Amino acid sequence: MTKATLAKALFEPDSIMLIGASSDLSKPGGRPLKFLQDHGYRGRIYPVNPRADTIGGLQCYPDIGAVRESIDHAFIMLAGDAAVEAVEQCAAAGAVCATVLAGGFAEAGDEGDRRQAELVATARDNGIRLLGPNSIGVINAAAGVALSANAMLELPELNAGRTAVISQSGSMIGALLSHGEARKVHYSKLISVGNEADLSVGEIGDLLIEDDATDVILLFLETLRDAERITAFARHAHEAGKPVIAYKLGRSSLGQKLARSHTGALAGSDETIAAFLAHNGIARVSMLDSLIEAPRLFGGRTPLDVTTKPGRVGVISTTGGGGAMVVDNLGLNGIDVALTPKSVSARLADHGIIQEPGRMVDLTMAGAKPEIVQGVIADMMAAPDIDAVVMVVGSSARFHPNLAVKPLLDWTGAAKPLAVYLAPEAQASLLLLAEAGIAVFRAPEACADGLHALLTWTPPKTLPACEPVPTLAALDGERVVAEAKALTMFAAMEITVAVGEVVENLEGAQKVASRLGYPIALKIASPDIAHKSDAGGVRIDIGDGDELARAYGDIINSVGVAHPDADIDGVLVQKMHSGLGEALLGFKRDPLVGPVIVLGLGGILAELYHDTALRLAPVDIIEAQAMIDEVIGLAPLRGYRNAPPGDMQALAQAIVDFSNFAREKAVLEAEINPLVVGAEGHGVVAVDGLIICGAAG
Amino acid sequence: MTKATLAKALFEPDSIMLIGASSDLSKPGGRPLKFLQDHGYRGRIYPVNPRADTIGGLQCYPDIGAVRESIDHAFIMLAGDAAVEAVEQCAAAGAVCATVLAGGFAEAGDEGDRRQAELVATARDNGIRLLGPNSIGVINAAAGVALSANAMLELPELNAGRTAVISQSGSMIGALLSHGEARKVHYSKLISVGNEADLSVGEIGDLLIEDDATDVILLFLETLRDAERITAFARHAHEAGKPVIAYKLGRSSLGQKLARSHTGALAGSDETIAAFLAHNGIARVSMLDSLIEAPRLFGGRTPLDVTTKPGRVGVISTTGGGGAMVVDNLGLNGIDVALTPKSVSARLADHGIIQEPGRMVDLTMAGAKPEIVQGVIADMMAAPDIDAVVMVVGSSARFHPNLAVKPLLDWTGAAKPLAVYLAPEAQASLLLLAEAGIAVFRAPEACADGLHALLTWTPPKTLPACEPVPTLAALDGERVVAEAKALTMFAAMEITVAVGEVVENLEGAQKVASRLGYPIALKIASPDIAHKSDAGGVRIDIGDGDELARAYGDIINSVGVAHPDADIDGVLVQKMHSGLGEALLGFKRDPLVGPVIVLGLGGILAELYHDTALRLAPVDIIEAQAMIDEVIGLAPLRGYRNAPPGDMQALAQAIVDFSNFAREKAVLEAEINPLVVGAEGHGVVAVDGLIICGAAG
Repeated sequence: MTKATLAKALFEPDSIMLIGASSDLSKPGGRPLKFLQDHGYRGRIYPVNPRADTIGGLQCYPDIGAVRESIDHAFIMLAGDAAVEAVEQCAAAGAVCATVLAGGFAEAGDEGDRRQAELVATARDNGIRLLGPNSIGVINAAAGVALSANAMLELPELNAGRTAVISQSGSMIGALLSHGEARKVHYSKLISVGNEADLSVGEIGDLLIEDDATDVILLFLETLRDAERITAFARHAHEAGKPVIAYKLGRSSLGQKLARSHTGALAGSDETIAAFLAHNGIARVSMLDSLIEAPRLFGGRTPLDVTTKPGRVGVISTTGGGGAMVVDNLGLNGIDVALTPKSVSARLADHGIIQEPGRMVDLTMAGAKPEIVQGVIADMMAAPDIDAVVMVVGSSARFHPNLAVKPLLDWTGAAKPLAVYLAPEAQASLLLLAEAGIAVFRAPEACADGLHALLTWTPPKTLPACEPVPTLAALDGERVVAEAKALTMFAAMEITVAVGEVVENLEGAQKVASRLGYPIALKIASPDIAHKSDAGGVRIDIGDGDELARAYGDIINSVGVAHPDADIDGVLVQKMHSGLGEALLGFKRDPLVGPVIVLGLGGILAELYHDTALRLAPVDIIEAQAMIDEVIGLAPLRGYRNAPPGDMQALAQAIVDFSNFAREKAVLEAEINPLVVGAEGHGVVAVDGLIICGAAG
Repeated sequence: MTKATLAKALFEPDSIMLIGASSDLSKPGGRPLKFLQDHGYRGRIYPVNPRADTIGGLQCYPDIGAVRESIDHAFIMLAGDAAVEAVEQCAAAGAVCATVLAGGFAEAGDEGDRRQAELVATARDNGIRLLGPNSIGVINAAAGVALSANAMLELPELNAGRTAVISQSGSMIGALLSHGEARKVHYSKLISVGNEADLSVGEIGDLLIEDDATDVILLFLETLRDAERITAFARHAHEAGKPVIAYKLGRSSLGQKLARSHTGALAGSDETIAAFLAHNGIARVSMLDSLIEAPRLFGGRTPLDVTTKPGRVGVISTTGGGGAMVVDNLGLNGIDVALTPKSVSARLADHGIIQEPGRMVDLTMAGAKPEIVQGVIADMMAAPDIDAVVMVVGSSARFHPNLAVKPLLDWTGAAKPLAVYLAPEAQASLLLLAEAGIAVFRAPEACADGLHALLTWTPPKTLPACEPVPTLAALDGERVVAEAKALTMFAAMEITVAVGEVVENLEGAQKVASRLGYPIALKIASPDIAHKSDAGGVRIDIGDGDELARAYGDIINSVGVAHPDADIDGVLVQKMHSGLGEALLGFKRDPLVGPVIVLGLGGILAELYHDTALRLAPVDIIEAQAMIDEVIGLAPLRGYRNAPPGDMQALAQAIVDFSNFAREKAVLEAEINPLVVGAEGHGVVAVDGLIICGAAG
């Protein structure tokens, strides 16, 4: 089936079959027919219900087979196994696609899982595409396709806009429709993807890129079900110049738990999904209000060319308190606010307004005249260090919309974006701005969140090519590779590792220690002991032979007590490396997004503070440097407060090298901990590590 | 002047003089007269303007002296020195209080500072009370006192509610009025305090406690100007059962910079002000929307009795996505969400709705019937581990407000609070709930923020009595007391300190080291060297005499090179104390809120992660324990992941003892760093520290 055929059947069907249509049009099963009629759908509608002759003035069919007409889109309102049977019959009747409304599939435990698998198999076997199950339907405003049970379609009018919505939550379709309506954000299409058993967010997104009626695509996500397709879709969207903006649930661990029980899918960690979205050039908002307003903020724009830090905002205000709230919230979002440009100070001085340069241009009552506002905005837009402008309007917005808002209407589609925050409730001003296509916020927090999303939006990144890991073949099916053997592999990846040797007795240890030179470290070598320190199996900073003898005896005794049955390979004698600090480098194959690499501080604090940088792997040196800059706890190594800086270049190179594990499907997880960071020019040394292998997935 | 006289003149004057009234009623100078007339003020109004005979149909006076009638409240619209003169003349004319509209005072640099001082002196000398300068005025809705230039008073009606607003931002009065109007949150009084040159937030708050028309008090703060009066007011408010809820700007450092330039006052650190608000039982919201909705959420309630952790929320939803947004945001706010109570599962099962217990009761379409909703809310309210209930309403709220919202209206004033989040735009439902006095939110983030404010709201705390610091008198006017001498003082406060002695040569060092027993530490003792480690002046973990000799020589050499001109007292020989971890204990006299105590992790990471617990000092043992629990980085010492726990009891006692500095006005700052924390039962030891003395303020 071609994409065009599918898109036509899904979004703009010539004919719709409503299976299980209720003759009571106020019931969920009756609503789709009512909504299609109310919103002027002009295609053919075939209700199927064995207990009715006509529904809504249309002939009703006793079963699917009775229809005997060509069908584009079947809307199935039957539950459980009846839905599966209906899919088969729809396919037999020649339907191109079917939407399944009912829940009780993958989100409903094992029995549901089984039923969903059957549903998908039936569809695939019979050549019909599937939306849902657990989908509330599809809306195409321009064509009157109100093919949904969502009660919000009681809206008297369905205005068509140029923004499409793909939502994993069916009820949010209604929330977006109604909020959008009230602020003149209209939609081209709204699609509830439900459980994405067949058609997924990514595939539907791809259809929307070719939709001439859609300029901007919003995603409401609870999880990621098909990262590969979303990746492809996001990149196509970027090429097509259609911004994609996501709101994703599960930022807190409570939210993640809920997403899991609610969708039946893995929720994934928020950091990982954030890295995935950024990697693919998908902007991300954190508030629902900023998702609603995003089309006007992002529409027609491409990501800013900001390589290392987010852009800067210029703030103008006619209300001190209102402006201050926006500045404060931008600060909380980590967005910098520009100092008053000289051009603005000069212009205000010409009008007798003397103001110290600061983080907000406070026009006061004297400066709220349209011509002054116009001029100040023009100056801000022209300032080279300003990437976006916010205008905060005070009480005048309520009763004098023309005065307060008129000077803002000319900036639609300007080279730099203008966002407006209306401090008072001021619906008339809001609608004037909305009609002109200017992003207008009702809350200072949403205004700041929207700007944060816009200014941290970057183009899709490309994964660099990387080399296979040379010695991986030598692993020979081992599941866990640790210590000396893991270090050998890291060394083969061109990462410097601590030199050392496993010995079987004290004499061996003393021989190796003399060769390496003191100070040295001793570590028990055993595949059975995961937490060597806890078992008393590690001694560091051993300065001479006497100390070595004592330490060796202590280790053997302690481990013997803690793990009497452990298989002991010997004791690792390792040269001590003490740099300026320690980092932790982790690699894993995430079940949702695939290989990722994590950089953090060594030790327990990194875990407590959630202070890590995460990227899809592999990474190049630029990305590795950005990761280093992101970890707060690495500040001392970056030369914080005149501390001697660490070898950040070597650290970045180690991140790049380590990320090569991405191409080795057999490696599920790997970790270097600690990676000792030396002073500038002294490199980094992997002191310990672990590799876990297995069958991927 | 009695409080009653002042309150009458300020809020409900029998007569108002408008000085500098413009004859153009659309201009800022003309507005107050127009607004007073429009909103039905029934007292006498005397416009003063030498260039008009009548204004707004009233006789106009050429100057203040010409009025010759008793005046309660003078509203001065003159700027600069003319305003100062007007205050003097108003006092001469017998006015009780005057509001000064103009800016150009303390917020405008040195010249403005001088002018404000003059303004205050004039008022005090002449026995008149002052609101402002830089105040947009006072509103008392019930009495039609629209004594303000805020353009929002063009509102056709000024409805009286039972919530008062005190705002440091004049323009926010208009924002709150208009948003409140749209959601039926009405106000009893709104007062713009401007620069608080005379009447402050605290004093006005105290007047409102005795105001029978006011139940709840909202504060919009940019800074704290009179912490003592706010403290007194907040405690009176608590006794009177009137909740006080604050929104405070300056959470980010950008916001703090702006507050400083915008108000001319110190902004203060956000952590310190947060501690101050909590100490005084003032609830704090982080979003403007939650401030607007706070009256219905807090009205009639007292702080929850939660001693160690915030309360728990029960979430019910008819929209999966909408409910999940609330749960996710509660999680981000650190508020726990209760698992579905058994009673709810049973009730739903009775209606054929089978649902796994989770963090949200998802009623689905089947459970959205009014009687089921009613029952589930009742069950949630009755559950002992639930402290507040949120109901999230989906699309039905838009077109079926009676159906969707009726079952919620009975819960006004229930023992546990009910908050509602309407996922769609649904104005009719919103108004139904608002009229019933149920808190109703338009954004999931604001709903979570409001609940967070409510559930973390605690009663005012009492500062414990504490002892004077015994040896403080011995300091004899020294400004900086460091090292051994500081430790001696800490010891006098019953804090265990590292034993040691300052010696003048290596022989002395060896003698002391033998007496103390190895390992020991050496530290250069000099009043001139602030950063001893940086100067090579510290050696730790010295194990024997040879090492001591080498280290001693190294220190003398390094310090000689780094600080050739420093005055050297000798070298401190100190017993080494290595516990399970290190903490930092700080004390300072904050210019806004007074003495505070800070607990953090030792070292640079605490600073990087802003991971500290701060309280007003002194503290008792309960508060000290709460501080320990708050510091994330102390988790290992609390026994995280089976780590051996530190002596938390000794740490808490040290915090209490150290906080005794609060009563010694001569001590401006003090620090113990590090405070070594031993294993349980092994106490804590102060190893180094500093005391800075001086004249307070």
